Amino acid sequence: MVYDPSWRGLTFHDLVPTGAMDARAYLEGCLERIAAREPVVRAFVATNIEGARAAADASATRRAAGRPLSPIDGMPIAIKDLIETADMPTQMGCDAYAGNWPKRDSAMVQALREAGAIILAKAVTTELGMSEPGPTTNPWNAAHTPGGSSSGSAAAVAAGFVPVAIGTQVAGSIIRPAAYCGNWALKPTQGGIHRGERQGTSQSTAGPHGNAPEDIWAVAREISSRVGGDPGTPGVMGPMSTPPARRPLRLAVMRTECWPRIDAESQAAFERFVRGLGLELLWPEDHPLLAALERAVGNAMAVGTRITAFENRWAFRNLDREKISARMRARLDASAATTAEDYAALLAERVAMRAAHAAMAPLADALIAPACPGPAPVWNPMANDAADNPRPTGDPSCNAGTSALGCPAVTVPVLAVRGMPMGVQLIGQPHHDAAVLAMARWMHEAAMR
Amino acid sequence: MVYDPSWRGLTFHDLVPTGAMDARAYLEGCLERIAAREPVVRAFVATNIEGARAAADASATRRAAGRPLSPIDGMPIAIKDLIETADMPTQMGCDAYAGNWPKRDSAMVQALREAGAIILAKAVTTELGMSEPGPTTNPWNAAHTPGGSSSGSAAAVAAGFVPVAIGTQVAGSIIRPAAYCGNWALKPTQGGIHRGERQGTSQSTAGPHGNAPEDIWAVAREISSRVGGDPGTPGVMGPMSTPPARRPLRLAVMRTECWPRIDAESQAAFERFVRGLGLELLWPEDHPLLAALERAVGNAMAVGTRITAFENRWAFRNLDREKISARMRARLDASAATTAEDYAALLAERVAMRAAHAAMAPLADALIAPACPGPAPVWNPMANDAADNPRPTGDPSCNAGTSALGCPAVTVPVLAVRGMPMGVQLIGQPHHDAAVLAMARWMHEAAMR
Repeated sequence: MVYDPSWRGLTFHDLVPTGAMDARAYLEGCLERIAAREPVVRAFVATNIEGARAAADASATRRAAGRPLSPIDGMPIAIKDLIETADMPTQMGCDAYAGNWPKRDSAMVQALREAGAIILAKAVTTELGMSEPGPTTNPWNAAHTPGGSSSGSAAAVAAGFVPVAIGTQVAGSIIRPAAYCGNWALKPTQGGIHRGERQGTSQSTAGPHGNAPEDIWAVAREISSRVGGDPGTPGVMGPMSTPPARRPLRLAVMRTECWPRIDAESQAAFERFVRGLGLELLWPEDHPLLAALERAVGNAMAVGTRITAFENRWAFRNLDREKISARMRARLDASAATTAEDYAALLAERVAMRAAHAAMAPLADALIAPACPGPAPVWNPMANDAADNPRPTGDPSCNAGTSALGCPAVTVPVLAVRGMPMGVQLIGQPHHDAAVLAMARWMHEAAMR
Repeated sequence: MVYDPSWRGLTFHDLVPTGAMDARAYLEGCLERIAAREPVVRAFVATNIEGARAAADASATRRAAGRPLSPIDGMPIAIKDLIETADMPTQMGCDAYAGNWPKRDSAMVQALREAGAIILAKAVTTELGMSEPGPTTNPWNAAHTPGGSSSGSAAAVAAGFVPVAIGTQVAGSIIRPAAYCGNWALKPTQGGIHRGERQGTSQSTAGPHGNAPEDIWAVAREISSRVGGDPGTPGVMGPMSTPPARRPLRLAVMRTECWPRIDAESQAAFERFVRGLGLELLWPEDHPLLAALERAVGNAMAVGTRITAFENRWAFRNLDREKISARMRARLDASAATTAEDYAALLAERVAMRAAHAAMAPLADALIAPACPGPAPVWNPMANDAADNPRPTGDPSCNAGTSALGCPAVTVPVLAVRGMPMGVQLIGQPHHDAAVLAMARWMHEAAMR
């Protein structure tokens, strides 16, 4: 299918809450699309269809009685398979976790169930959220990767299997696959959505993919208002209803280390789009504070990779080496070269990045940047080894900076390049998730005009 | 036994590393004391005696060859039973975890094994590190509590079962039991020792109990130099060798909400001790910055309790309610009243506490305070229900402030009250763990003169 940004995917807020469709009929539509396309898309590792049908019927009864638990009551949701669910296994895309089924709901899953959402499926993740890919294909063209590590979450939303799926990001795993698949997605302020007991590295954040800002904001707030953020962080704050579109006064363009990795056609599409917004723009060369931010995050890929490798080493060392991929073994071995002293220095470098970001806050309402380095690359799962291709789910370098900054980012489906989606992201100051989403809505409306 | 602060407990640094005793002989001494006293002390829930003997022999061989892995090579250590060990179960003092045996070593256990330490035993914790006590008694008088939640860790050190045991603290669970049992202990800067994958609440910190500053510092640094701190924190820093005694220029006395809860005899003993140090002292009424700190942490017990209850709720809700104590059920139910919005406000209150502490840093080299509100209380395990006694392991109010501040604290065994130990703590600025220990050594030497 040739992608066009005017395409409208499966939404929820304008169908079930409005009474246009009941929760069971909505779910059955999802199941039909899954039956038709899942053999090629391969977004899911587990489903709970009978449980989902029972939950949908209960939701329909509540809504018919005028007593929905929340605006997302009856919404089918897929959960990235790094996150624990009591009623489905959590296998993390890793043979070492084959059959792993702790009978626990992570905090966010508890919150979703309390809000009436329907936990329909576990979505494919790359192995342990790292670089070894799963089987998922891009719904727009099965020869291309959907991105990763939230591969199944991004593909399930683009394919209309669910209106919202939860992903997680350490380097670029929410924003990049969403941008490759034509989704909206929110990578909240660091720790904005309580992850539960797993994936506790210092740059890991959970966030929703969806086809509309209303749906992703509702999910983020219905979770965070119930369970807050990760321990020690306040969680995504702001209004419960989706913030209305807001025109930024000024945007600052962010290039980072990804810029030279973007092909010329995609660079041109991004620049044309930004200049076409009719806003006052600041470019990195326009102000020394922006230049300083660019310098500060110039090495964010390596800094984030090393921080996370060090933090994960202790957990990963407990895994059977025969049951992790060659790519993961190489990562684990490389991480052994990072000492605790190196790690302390890397954290200090990240603190400096955040200080540079805070210092430029008065200059612009948000940063704008490509959400991925061009459309999703072609991948060949048959030639899938570390030596051939270190990043078979695409390059996260457009996201490494915002991940290290711990700030909110929203990807918006506004560009098509060579018939495939390419997202553009808006990036705000920490805890200003709502303001970023409001500007993202304005930007989307401007693009669709 | 009547406690006297001049008592010297089991140390390691001056025996095995010096060649005075080999690791196997040292271990056999520990095993003899365990055989003699464990039936009353009840410090351990599991031991690995044959594994320990094999590890001691291997260590002795390394030392004989002049190739110890570290200064703690051959040191028998007990691990609080909240922390995972591959070779022993991790049951967390909770029936819901009976038989739980993940075949994993937490990060700190990996580090200890790499340094050649011998993981001899899992030490009793209160239920999930909260208020429901285990069976451990105080080695100085079995009618008294050893304190909690690191009950077994504190008692094992005082009874000479091991020279060092690892505890964890959220409110007062390292410093208080150490102070009740006559141990030295370090509650590091928040996150100073990597906890591994469990107990990830925002005030939880792991730290060593021991009978000498040399032993606790060596353990803290041998762990933190290998695995660092919790994700996002740099870990305990400073010299690898124990910092030498250093006389503070000035100490500020901290009273907090614990002061009115301390009996008159213990208050007098503390004040006499502090005035006898021959140092310039600042009292809370002497300087508005100290008064401001007292006000800021005046509600730290309630703030910390509510923060932790909210953070733990999601994990605890997955437990079978029939398999947790009435005291834990009450805590869980109370926590449901805390909303995500309340939680955000509580975090902001904690940020303000930390700002007040940072602001007074130039006034004094450290804060000094009682480490517990008098000697360990008598307890009756037969009348052990929530209505009778909400805190059967003693009152953590002397520690709630430092826990909320996230700063290092060292308890020093310098007082005896009514024939039982009562520790005095020195408290420093975050990441200045080494400086606090150096002043604690000076204080101990001054007290022993």
